[in-house]
Amino acid sequence: MSHLDSVSSPKTPDFSALKSWIPPERLITDPGEVSVYECDGLPLHKKSPIAVVLCKSEEEVVQTVKWCDREGLPFVPRGAGTGLSGGATPITAGVIIDLNRMNRIKHIDAENRFAIVEPGVINNHLSDATRPQGLEYAPDPSSQRACTIGGNVAENSGGPHCLKYGVTTDHVLGLRVVLPDGQIVQMGGPEIDQPGYDLTGLFVGTEGTFGIVTEVTVNLIPPPPSVRTYLAIFDSLGLACRMVSQITRSGILPAALEIMDQNTIRAVEASVFRAGYPEDAAAVLLIETHGIDDSLADEEARIIEFAQECHAIEFRTANDEKERMDLWKGRKGAFGAMGRVNTDLYVLDGVVPRTQLESVLNRVGEIAEKHQVTVSNVFHAGDGNLHPNISYDGRDPEESHRVLEAGKEILQLCVDSGGTISGEHGIGLEKSEFLPMVFSDEHIDTMIELRLAVDPQERSNPQKIFPDNRVSKDGGRQKLNKVPQ
Amino acid sequence: MSHLDSVSSPKTPDFSALKSWIPPERLITDPGEVSVYECDGLPLHKKSPIAVVLCKSEEEVVQTVKWCDREGLPFVPRGAGTGLSGGATPITAGVIIDLNRMNRIKHIDAENRFAIVEPGVINNHLSDATRPQGLEYAPDPSSQRACTIGGNVAENSGGPHCLKYGVTTDHVLGLRVVLPDGQIVQMGGPEIDQPGYDLTGLFVGTEGTFGIVTEVTVNLIPPPPSVRTYLAIFDSLGLACRMVSQITRSGILPAALEIMDQNTIRAVEASVFRAGYPEDAAAVLLIETHGIDDSLADEEARIIEFAQECHAIEFRTANDEKERMDLWKGRKGAFGAMGRVNTDLYVLDGVVPRTQLESVLNRVGEIAEKHQVTVSNVFHAGDGNLHPNISYDGRDPEESHRVLEAGKEILQLCVDSGGTISGEHGIGLEKSEFLPMVFSDEHIDTMIELRLAVDPQERSNPQKIFPDNRVSKDGGRQKLNKVPQ
Repeated sequence: MSHLDSVSSPKTPDFSALKSWIPPERLITDPGEVSVYECDGLPLHKKSPIAVVLCKSEEEVVQTVKWCDREGLPFVPRGAGTGLSGGATPITAGVIIDLNRMNRIKHIDAENRFAIVEPGVINNHLSDATRPQGLEYAPDPSSQRACTIGGNVAENSGGPHCLKYGVTTDHVLGLRVVLPDGQIVQMGGPEIDQPGYDLTGLFVGTEGTFGIVTEVTVNLIPPPPSVRTYLAIFDSLGLACRMVSQITRSGILPAALEIMDQNTIRAVEASVFRAGYPEDAAAVLLIETHGIDDSLADEEARIIEFAQECHAIEFRTANDEKERMDLWKGRKGAFGAMGRVNTDLYVLDGVVPRTQLESVLNRVGEIAEKHQVTVSNVFHAGDGNLHPNISYDGRDPEESHRVLEAGKEILQLCVDSGGTISGEHGIGLEKSEFLPMVFSDEHIDTMIELRLAVDPQERSNPQKIFPDNRVSKDGGRQKLNKVPQ
Repeated sequence: MSHLDSVSSPKTPDFSALKSWIPPERLITDPGEVSVYECDGLPLHKKSPIAVVLCKSEEEVVQTVKWCDREGLPFVPRGAGTGLSGGATPITAGVIIDLNRMNRIKHIDAENRFAIVEPGVINNHLSDATRPQGLEYAPDPSSQRACTIGGNVAENSGGPHCLKYGVTTDHVLGLRVVLPDGQIVQMGGPEIDQPGYDLTGLFVGTEGTFGIVTEVTVNLIPPPPSVRTYLAIFDSLGLACRMVSQITRSGILPAALEIMDQNTIRAVEASVFRAGYPEDAAAVLLIETHGIDDSLADEEARIIEFAQECHAIEFRTANDEKERMDLWKGRKGAFGAMGRVNTDLYVLDGVVPRTQLESVLNRVGEIAEKHQVTVSNVFHAGDGNLHPNISYDGRDPEESHRVLEAGKEILQLCVDSGGTISGEHGIGLEKSEFLPMVFSDEHIDTMIELRLAVDPQERSNPQKIFPDNRVSKDGGRQKLNKVPQ
């Protein structure tokens, strides 16, 4: 938590220029009210912003960014605040630019299969709007009922079905961005294969450090002709992992392969998300396949065979949409259910090679025991993307310290197994100090040089992604984290 | 051709350091011999390099780049030199770093479906090597028997089958790059969804302006279970375009949809690539579908219907692999065949909305007539990617001038129709002055800032992509095209 140590309060900014055009109900400066914005879904770091500006249009975003520039203040773009790595936490006490009111779906082109949306559109609302025209937006983060497309773009979000369909960057065709100096750039668009540098691809996943997205052009896809959903129940987590390996090795590419361990099952069954999973099971594996009926029937026969070979103690098949929703209910509600276990929840995110799932999870259990923390695992097994979740009481500093230590060890374990420190939640504040675990100095320097090329004053979401006090490769000329504090 | 006007010869460099480690047969400085490297597949701009270094390893690339840095010389990476926008033309008279000897396929991982290759591997050779393991590398530029993977990465190359499978960037998982200052960065890798900025995605398509790729990790895919290939013959180019619209509007996604016009058919039939196309036909449409047999049979019935509705005068179906190769023979040999029509060939590349194909091609015919040039059209109709090809005698300056004028008008036409100035050949030298046709000043400035962040001295392939004398947005601080000349 070295970030927090170095932060002090800035001078009081001159709000008069802001107040000349923003209605009072959309400018929050009251210390009690701004504290609502002190963190996002990562409860480990907290800092209140100086002000929150609730923007309704691109023009308002430009005005706010230019005002920040004149005042020498950093700004942090924010959607629903569901991010899990502290990306929307205003750690340098700047201004939060809230984009939730920019929530229009501006255009749906069904023939050419794209939509143009504002950043505050909720992920789920987009598919709701396009489904009558036979199209969907594929990326489906677990928070999809709350999270926004703009936040998804910033974090390059994934989701259960990204195993088959790819993550956010695979579905973003174009962006309009307000750069940190207030200039607007339109990049990409519905046409394929634009010439020049791929700015759209570069901006997706930059976690707010390259400016503020004010419009997103996304790809839409038709829903699969048929869907089959299964649940395999195991008395050993290792056997569930083995079944995942068998399925992927066989050449079948399911739409989703999700595992929940015993702690998760118990949390789910004790909650309103109760899904009828056997509470003494060690693991459940949710499998979904998408395609045409003939292929799905072939795949089903093989999946049942694999379940038998891996000694599943029960195998359920959804026979209709209601049964399908029932099988998914526990998975969709898993994070909500865990939130009830204790006052705080630290959702970890790491990637390991699929072949290492079983051994890594055993080691995760040992780390939890060593630090005496409660870990529940729910994860995208198909792409080796782990989510060990630690339930704890954030009011207890000693427990919080143990949680951080366990988290760091688990991420190091992911790296040591040949994986990486983040699958889909970004680096944010949470993992900036861990960046050197997976990237060389030259790689980090190159990223920093690009960051400084777009945002030389580090106005846009400073102190995220990069470790503290890292000097860029041309020596003393430029240094990160020089924003006035 | 303003680039050429401003270029004069640099001072003679000190080759002694280079000669201390590179064997004499891999360093070319003789004026007669270096002139072989005066251009790539774009014959409109020519300039001999000072020297050509034939590198065999990453270490040699690093040494050469560092030597260029010390000598203040620009360098131009080069693969097979099949590029069509002048990307490998050493317009500032620097050093060519030839990568053809770095042609090892270093690793094939069939289970996880990726390969690691050196940049000089020929596109076709990669699939030849992976096919015994049931896997292929999808992007298939027309020059795939000669062009290299490194060149494909630089240009983000497409090909006939990219309609279904996507272009190079969709298949590159990771890169090793020697930056313009000689540092090495490993970016990306076989794991999906890496955290941090997407450097891999950014580097693909930068046309050599971000450094030299020394290793590429590519995605491999299994070949389609079944393939069907058809040829529809028309007495009107417009009707061929209409059939393309009907197919794509129906929801069928063919693997390829390629049109050749009458001039192309005649060139093919007069060459060794003779494919048995009727010489009086106005257009042929090559259609290929990939998938499982049941779907393909359904699609075939509908495709035959569309052919009838569009009054195809003949419809051929390939009944075996030999017949399939025969249908493709003319298309694969089209550029070779056109090369025989006159001494030089200018291969244009532009994109138009599919719905505009017919009207744009009519206008292309009018532009050809106005400037009295011979245009043959062969193009990826499915994604609206036109290739109007102008055959001419480059020894005639007046004719060359008319060719350039016609080319510029055709690109402006593409933009005016809602398309863009390049589909797959890059910007290079050819189109740098046209960049403002499709990008705003802010967009170009952002690209230039990124370019200067990675290559502040503009050592790596200078004077490509960006228009002459464009000042970056922070005014006098940095200016492009300042390399010593």
